[in-house]
Amino acid sequence: MSTEQHFTHFTEDGRPVMVNVTGKDTTKRTAIAETTVKMKATTRESIVQQAIKKGDVLAVAQLAGIMAAKKTSELIPLCHHVPLHHVSLTLTFQSQEEGSDISRLHIECHVETSYQTGVEMEALTACSVAALTVYDMCKAIDRGMEITDTRLVYKAGGKSGVFQAIST
Amino acid sequence: MSTEQHFTHFTEDGRPVMVNVTGKDTTKRTAIAETTVKMKATTRESIVQQAIKKGDVLAVAQLAGIMAAKKTSELIPLCHHVPLHHVSLTLTFQSQEEGSDISRLHIECHVETSYQTGVEMEALTACSVAALTVYDMCKAIDRGMEITDTRLVYKAGGKSGVFQAIST
Amino acid sequence: MSTEQHFTHFTEDGRPVMVNVTGKDTTKRTAIAETTVKMKATTRESIVQQAIKKGDVLAVAQLAGIMAAKKTSELIPLCHHVPLHHVSLTLTFQSQEEGSDISRLHIECHVETSYQTGVEMEALTACSVAALTVYDMCKAIDRGMEITDTRLVYKAGGKSGVFQAIST
Amino acid sequence: MSTEQHFTHFTEDGRPVMVNVTGKDTTKRTAIAETTVKMKATTRESIVQQAIKKGDVLAVAQLAGIMAAKKTSELIPLCHHVPLHHVSLTLTFQSQEEGSDISRLHIECHVETSYQTGVEMEALTACSVAALTVYDMCKAIDRGMEITDTRLVYKAGGKSGVFQAIST
Amino acid sequence: MSTEQHFTHFTEDGRPVMVNVTGKDTTKRTAIAETTVKMKATTRESIVQQAIKKGDVLAVAQLAGIMAAKKTSELIPLCHHVPLHHVSLTLTFQSQEEGSDISRLHIECHVETSYQTGVEMEALTACSVAALTVYDMCKAIDRGMEITDTRLVYKAGGKSGVFQAIST
Amino acid sequence: MSTEQHFTHFTEDGRPVMVNVTGKDTTKRTAIAETTVKMKATTRESIVQQAIKKGDVLAVAQLAGIMAAKKTSELIPLCHHVPLHHVSLTLTFQSQEEGSDISRLHIECHVETSYQTGVEMEALTACSVAALTVYDMCKAIDRGMEITDTRLVYKAGGKSGVFQAIST
Repeated sequence: MSTEQHFTHFTEDGRPVMVNVTGKDTTKRTAIAETTVKMKATTRESIVQQAIKKGDVLAVAQLAGIMAAKKTSELIPLCHHVPLHHVSLTLTFQSQEEGSDISRLHIECHVETSYQTGVEMEALTACSVAALTVYDMCKAIDRGMEITDTRLVYKAGGKSGVFQAIST
Repeated sequence: MSTEQHFTHFTEDGRPVMVNVTGKDTTKRTAIAETTVKMKATTRESIVQQAIKKGDVLAVAQLAGIMAAKKTSELIPLCHHVPLHHVSLTLTFQSQEEGSDISRLHIECHVETSYQTGVEMEALTACSVAALTVYDMCKAIDRGMEITDTRLVYKAGGKSGVFQAIST
Repeated sequence: MSTEQHFTHFTEDGRPVMVNVTGKDTTKRTAIAETTVKMKATTRESIVQQAIKKGDVLAVAQLAGIMAAKKTSELIPLCHHVPLHHVSLTLTFQSQEEGSDISRLHIECHVETSYQTGVEMEALTACSVAALTVYDMCKAIDRGMEITDTRLVYKAGGKSGVFQAIST
Repeated sequence: MSTEQHFTHFTEDGRPVMVNVTGKDTTKRTAIAETTVKMKATTRESIVQQAIKKGDVLAVAQLAGIMAAKKTSELIPLCHHVPLHHVSLTLTFQSQEEGSDISRLHIECHVETSYQTGVEMEALTACSVAALTVYDMCKAIDRGMEITDTRLVYKAGGKSGVFQAIST
Repeated sequence: MSTEQHFTHFTEDGRPVMVNVTGKDTTKRTAIAETTVKMKATTRESIVQQAIKKGDVLAVAQLAGIMAAKKTSELIPLCHHVPLHHVSLTLTFQSQEEGSDISRLHIECHVETSYQTGVEMEALTACSVAALTVYDMCKAIDRGMEITDTRLVYKAGGKSGVFQAIST
Repeated sequence: MSTEQHFTHFTEDGRPVMVNVTGKDTTKRTAIAETTVKMKATTRESIVQQAIKKGDVLAVAQLAGIMAAKKTSELIPLCHHVPLHHVSLTLTFQSQEEGSDISRLHIECHVETSYQTGVEMEALTACSVAALTVYDMCKAIDRGMEITDTRLVYKAGGKSGVFQAIST
């Protein structure tokens, strides 16, 4: 372990704290996170069919994600409450390999604010809750769905600067 | 799409609803879910070192998961509020391949109750929030962590009976 | 004032309390409430047009109503937390008089459970929050909208028996 | 429909979003909303009598309204969390026509802040929850009460300027 | 330390859990807790004077306590969510020694339910939040107030039977 | 009663309000609060023993306190929502008199922000909920524990300036 590494959420003597952001600059903060829900191809078809009939799984999940972003500081113990300026989510089925019986729903969340700490956790929480909502609404027909590759894609603002995930 | 497939969370005319559980039996319900946090091997070392010094990332994450299980119905729009009888989480580092620079933290949550609907979402939500909390506490040293393979492992109770995930 | 009239939410000496339901029977409880959002006819057209383009004001309001039903006991100080078995909302534009520039969106909520106290407040709260959500989403184009005639339509279950509003 | 009309809560392709307020000015924002609870004249008498005996329906409703204003962003899906500088509610019985058996309780809420978006929804939500609380506390003696004419009375601040409802 | 002593909130290997109440009997559960707010005698006078003018510190505190009882499981990490049947609080100034410049406000909370676990934490939480609310409302005139002797007075129901505090 | 004394949380005519902070300066605000949990000496030994085995009562209580600080405005009716910059809690057993069978756990909370109103209530709420969590986790072995001397130790910032409790 590099001796430079340290956790910001612990005091010198090892007690968890909510980091002091008093000295930090208020700057524009952006974060983009993503996740993927793996499901049966037939589940995808059901979701698409249902949306045509008006009951839209993805619309419910999207709203759940936006509302969860606002609840992040209640869920993550040492997270600051950050007033959010903007939250948007997109849910898109990835193009599918011919004959595959697995479909992938890609969820991406974009959060923006102007504050003394970043909004990575808000973006990741929104993605996770949107994915869990898809699971909830489809579990009666596909209990084996998996949520994978939940990760930060991009962040900007603050002292640590820009982070860009290596695309895979 | 099989014509038998249908979503329980939509009405005949496609409107989302909270499923009517009035006619369902109150039976013992169990659910086990899991997820994995992929991180740098050096991040694992930092977590382990920090725990020795008293600041325990895994203890914070575990508590966050238990508390999130109780908030599931606030996060997942069409989920019933289920009074939970038992919630426990375990967080364990998987044995690591020699020389690998990737470590895997396995999170498993076990939820139990006696009610008219199951607790799969509570177990999945607890796992997800515990994983997000690990991300939050370690992000200053490893922003590239990924949360993967969030899934239901087992459920029992209710009309749909036992579900057991195929181990991978 | 009839001397028989009394408030159940106050003690003999006038202190507010959460009514003791220990002695009450657990029976099936149903409540139906309604409300109406009055808006410009052009606002109605915008809502309908937008829904065709996929952004559905009514779908967002419906979900907000369902989620609010679950939060009723957090909002209404002396209300018991009642685990709900079923919540559904319908939002329908009323047929409009020729040439009128006022449209009416009718919102109805149906709640069901089996408990020691009724679910009137849950149905009324769901209607109100759904209506407020319509206001929020349309306020940029019609700040003069009004929410009217929020009332209980029907309730059954419990010692006080069936209530049926006089239709108007 | 005027082609200028558009919903701020949807993206170009019709997806609901939390509007981006990053570019908006932080200015003083004021909103006043109102609602009315229609009840039997005997219910009014009971409320007034009870207040004399110390149990004050209106005091409970007023507090519920203030607390609800703080919860607005949890209830209205696309509403920003706005830190409020001031919330006050007044609840007043309107002067009553001789011999009428209907009484009207007028509720008005005034909210103020300095932020990048307005507080109309906070004022409207406070009024609605105060009215619902009156319903809850009086429902045992008057289940037919109605909540009517919930509307924005006045708002100031922000790019859209001042709005003043036409008095009726 | 007696070898019989053990914590119910930890597993054998020392991990915190939400205790499994599946095997426990559903019985009537009662808990009474109390606390005391010590303040200047002049603060007491101000509270009493203010109540005469209609603004009642004790009424606000009482309501805050009742609402907090319903939130207990959100505040205490390993506490079960228990649906409460009854909550009441009394706030009474203790008779004061002649010439003393210290007044004592006694707060007592009574909670009742029928469930598989007790309601001690609900009663204690309600007392604490009522006392904190008194502090909040009077802090501008008496910042040195103290909250003391918060304790369980009585509990009944469940396997551990009746507990009665030794009066002091 | 000094005629200068007045409650900031009431209007001229005695109605409770959320104080208008619009005119107040945004300055650095600090608050330190404390409380004490009195318990049997054997309970202290159990807590210490359990921590060695990994299950740490004090760690759970500390986290509960931090999370409660963020919930203060939901619990205290007329409290503003204040975005917090920093929260930390310390829990320390006081040195014990020889032969005494009473132990005292001292809890101190430090909160900091930059806002138009102070954070005394946040610090006091965090202390109270941390103490209640200790009670919850130890109640199976010591139901007679008491929470005492909850008070503000220090505050700075804002027009009313510095407050320093008289040490006892």
